[in-house]
Amino acid sequence: MRLIGTIYSPFTEKDQTPIQVSRSQAIGQVEILPEFVDGLKDIEELSHIHLLYIFHKSSGYALHVKPFLDDREHGIFATRYPCRPNQIGISTVRLVSRQGNTLIIKGVDVLDGTPLLDIKPYVPDFDHRTEDVRVGWYETRSKK
Amino acid sequence: MRLIGTIYSPFTEKDQTPIQVSRSQAIGQVEILPEFVDGLKDIEELSHIHLLYIFHKSSGYALHVKPFLDDREHGIFATRYPCRPNQIGISTVRLVSRQGNTLIIKGVDVLDGTPLLDIKPYVPDFDHRTEDVRVGWYETRSKK
Repeated sequence: MRLIGTIYSPFTEKDQTPIQVSRSQAIGQVEILPEFVDGLKDIEELSHIHLLYIFHKSSGYALHVKPFLDDREHGIFATRYPCRPNQIGISTVRLVSRQGNTLIIKGVDVLDGTPLLDIKPYVPDFDHRTEDVRVGWYETRSKK
Repeated sequence: MRLIGTIYSPFTEKDQTPIQVSRSQAIGQVEILPEFVDGLKDIEELSHIHLLYIFHKSSGYALHVKPFLDDREHGIFATRYPCRPNQIGISTVRLVSRQGNTLIIKGVDVLDGTPLLDIKPYVPDFDHRTEDVRVGWYETRSKK
């Protein structure tokens, strides 16, 4: 795994950081390393992007965790809790604009200085499910 | 990064493998390594899960690529093409059932034997965007 850039956000402390993009209106910046900037071609055409990044301030993991949004324990793979066997996070954010190697994003929910691994286009035809969706313990917990 | 399990699918050749979950009705299995099975607690409550995995049959990358669904070049980060600086894929699949350390999934779009890095719950409140979505070059290409 190699760093392709860094996500900058207004959040320097974990307990100030929004739980999930849907709870954030914050503006952030994604700075891409010079050697990867050519990979951004045509990204301006997209309204939303998936960011894949490292939860760099989390260490270790447990298989049962009490997530931020619940007071009961769940298996780590039934939660989005950051302390995971592989500490990779995903956030789907609005791409506001691009200025050279910098993307201005809205709805950032990560700590300032988060190491970026990948950017992928958000494509509802691929990413969105409507048929018989059940979200388990999130049912009453995922709302804003 | 550590392996947490393996994704099994009917697809042993790249050119037989569906482009994206939305083009697949195929059934697959996710086998979780014994040391991570406790992390599956409550996963049965979820109808859909995100799988994060390694594109293990892809090597190298270019910053401009001609993706499967288009005949023009785009920046790698404006595509879901597998040969990327970090060869991590995401697929959002239906969780049909769990049997011990094995998850039966529907809509698998990866090669047989794909190394699994993480499972996360699919939660529309976090993952779904409806407001002013633009998908750029995918506009006419992402339909089934």
